[in-house]
Amino acid sequence: MRPITLQLQPESSQPLYIQLYEYLKAEIAAGGIAAGEKLPSLRKIARDLGISVTTAEMAYSQLLVEGYVESRPQSGYYAGALRAPAQTGGGPRAAAGDIDFDTYPFEEARYKYDLSCFDFVKWKKCMSKVLNEHSALLLFESDPQGEKVLRHEISKYLYTSRGVICRPEQIVISAGTQSLISYLARIMRHMSIDHVATEDPGYAPVQNIFRDHGFAITRIPVEQDGIVIERLPVNIPSAVYVSPSNQFPTGSVMPIGRRYQLLEWASANHSIILEDDYDSELRYFGKPVPALQGLDEGDCVVYFGSFSSTLFPAIRISYMVLPRPMADLFQQIKGDYNQPCSKEEQLTLAMFMENGYYYTNIRRLRSLYSQKLQAVLAAFARYAPGFVTPLNTNSGINITLRVRTSLTPEELSARAGSISLHVRPVASLTDQETAALIFYYNQVPLAEIDESVRDMIDLWRS
Amino acid sequence: MRPITLQLQPESSQPLYIQLYEYLKAEIAAGGIAAGEKLPSLRKIARDLGISVTTAEMAYSQLLVEGYVESRPQSGYYAGALRAPAQTGGGPRAAAGDIDFDTYPFEEARYKYDLSCFDFVKWKKCMSKVLNEHSALLLFESDPQGEKVLRHEISKYLYTSRGVICRPEQIVISAGTQSLISYLARIMRHMSIDHVATEDPGYAPVQNIFRDHGFAITRIPVEQDGIVIERLPVNIPSAVYVSPSNQFPTGSVMPIGRRYQLLEWASANHSIILEDDYDSELRYFGKPVPALQGLDEGDCVVYFGSFSSTLFPAIRISYMVLPRPMADLFQQIKGDYNQPCSKEEQLTLAMFMENGYYYTNIRRLRSLYSQKLQAVLAAFARYAPGFVTPLNTNSGINITLRVRTSLTPEELSARAGSISLHVRPVASLTDQETAALIFYYNQVPLAEIDESVRDMIDLWRS
Repeated sequence: MRPITLQLQPESSQPLYIQLYEYLKAEIAAGGIAAGEKLPSLRKIARDLGISVTTAEMAYSQLLVEGYVESRPQSGYYAGALRAPAQTGGGPRAAAGDIDFDTYPFEEARYKYDLSCFDFVKWKKCMSKVLNEHSALLLFESDPQGEKVLRHEISKYLYTSRGVICRPEQIVISAGTQSLISYLARIMRHMSIDHVATEDPGYAPVQNIFRDHGFAITRIPVEQDGIVIERLPVNIPSAVYVSPSNQFPTGSVMPIGRRYQLLEWASANHSIILEDDYDSELRYFGKPVPALQGLDEGDCVVYFGSFSSTLFPAIRISYMVLPRPMADLFQQIKGDYNQPCSKEEQLTLAMFMENGYYYTNIRRLRSLYSQKLQAVLAAFARYAPGFVTPLNTNSGINITLRVRTSLTPEELSARAGSISLHVRPVASLTDQETAALIFYYNQVPLAEIDESVRDMIDLWRS
Repeated sequence: MRPITLQLQPESSQPLYIQLYEYLKAEIAAGGIAAGEKLPSLRKIARDLGISVTTAEMAYSQLLVEGYVESRPQSGYYAGALRAPAQTGGGPRAAAGDIDFDTYPFEEARYKYDLSCFDFVKWKKCMSKVLNEHSALLLFESDPQGEKVLRHEISKYLYTSRGVICRPEQIVISAGTQSLISYLARIMRHMSIDHVATEDPGYAPVQNIFRDHGFAITRIPVEQDGIVIERLPVNIPSAVYVSPSNQFPTGSVMPIGRRYQLLEWASANHSIILEDDYDSELRYFGKPVPALQGLDEGDCVVYFGSFSSTLFPAIRISYMVLPRPMADLFQQIKGDYNQPCSKEEQLTLAMFMENGYYYTNIRRLRSLYSQKLQAVLAAFARYAPGFVTPLNTNSGINITLRVRTSLTPEELSARAGSISLHVRPVASLTDQETAALIFYYNQVPLAEIDESVRDMIDLWRS
């Protein structure tokens, strides 16, 4: 081997053994010490470099662990056999650039937004309380079913706000519909259900998830008062996915008589109803329609809810309420899953609800969004009569639009996007003469609504 | 109960929680607090004594562990041993009872824990900054690939700490191995890979996830220097799942020569290597061994990392680094997924890393856990020579134990659990004469390790 030319730097922040280790590693990699060549003994290298034997030994052990050096009993240390790594070009430092919190928000915020939609001060207060007083809880993984304290708050909320009757044990919390349906798919197989009926038009992602899980899908038409019950499968156990309080995307509401008919269908066919109750807290005209689940006496309704519209969009906390027999089946499989939802956010939300802030926020949103919706409807009436027809105008954070145009919905969406408005195409409602779209007006500040709608209409007409 | 007359001594060498614990224990023993009598709530006793809720909580936990106090889930803390309250029948309101943040922690904290493992003050500081200055970001859903600002921080961290070379575009963030492998499964099918080789013994959950996704599994034996490369499939494209820097559960480290051999195998067979680098930052003897990914020149290594061991266990942020061609494939499918990880936590973590706190925390953990590990090894040497043999002693947050006993690992685990120690059976290493277990010593406070190990050994011998 080449003589050792290492100059140790005792004042360096790098320990001496690391300096020696780095030197020898580089020498071995570069071939200055050939594979199989014997290294100086610990005592010799310690004496030559003026370091302790222990320091030399630590450097050698590290080389040994990584395989750069081999130890032969009674003989000493030898350079290991390896191929030298070629020089890599560039490296991540050059590539990484300077992404930081100064420039970041501007890249992310593609659409207009309204900070008054959520009370981040109260949220921070609850988060701080969790971190100050209950941080020990974060030293344990979350219950796969969701934090009990949050399930408890949800059960109270659902009872008072939506007429849903359940115990915390029946609630399963997860990060979005996809994982909830994965659990459900396993439970449904236990129940010999392999068929799902969905609304047409309806919420496509749910259909796709069930199809991915191997379920057969039947699409049932939706009329003025909801899904056509007479077309549902009979004599085989199946599941039907419905949004009776706010059908997507038509906004139709299922009247009470039809609800009882749907429950009877389920009970007569050993079938279940999957009730998606999205956005139903946000109803601006009239009283919110109570959930189907509260009418169910045959343990056949699975209820789905989420916090994305009533808290802030980045939060991904969704839940489902299982009938008791299905909740028992969930207990048998839950050990196979980890909880994807942040425990910190689950606890913060439980605190937020316990303190009544969630109720306050919904009341505030209902008032704010109903003003926004009035402004939106007034603007379309003013700037686009006969050109744009609003369809679903009673609830939620968006409005369905039918536009009389030869442009595609994708083209309309792109033009709206160019002035930071969030508009999504709806293929299922688009036809030869009109394009259907969903306009998320809730994030546009109230004062900007009139001007935003006017500018959008101008872009759509040109 | 008698009024509390305790005078806390803040200058005493005895921690405040021990003083409170001793006082309450004496009171209960002397009958000053009668069996069955309700104790003050955590908040009340904290306020009355001018201590933090956490301090009160630690005293109560200890009393709970020792049986001086019982916790009734929907009510509070009671002195002495009492029968649990009978289940109340009726609707959801009766059932919901009074689960709240006073009683909650004790039900959750099944094991000993150590609050000094993570700096929640700094975390809270970062979280507050996100909520104060960047709350607009929370009005948009997270990128399905993960927040760019966090991917940027991870790429810098991986380069300096683990020798991993990547751009932020190659990183995919998700909530645990399961969802990462779901993405990977789709990408691998695009690459016509339908075969996965895994380590035997190895990390079973990963095998199960691949099997659930329809992949064929071959189990390859692990020897002193890692997986036996000569037994890997040839002439068909496949994937091999390895943990070269800290094999689970044997702790073996793959030497540099073998690493190059593994890379050559992958390159020759159009195959990929899935490198699980879990816990490799936490190496207590010598320097962490650099990752295999940094040696890869053939775009064949997928690197997996996680924050569960280096932050706090409740956080579920994991990530993988894809070779560039696979990262391009991910771009094509990412629109089908939602990001399950909390955006709030992703942004907080990016801030925590940007400020250098993450590095400080790892240095602190390395020092704290290495002291704990020494104490654990000393205790086994003292109380159980020839009875318990520690196997994997160089890194991580746990230690593998081989126990010479006729008891099953499940029985040993249950006994350890009875004194709040977290010990998990390892079926793959258990044989006729010995039971193999993994002991999570990291959460046991340093001062309690000797006594905890002694008590556990007593329970295992009896």
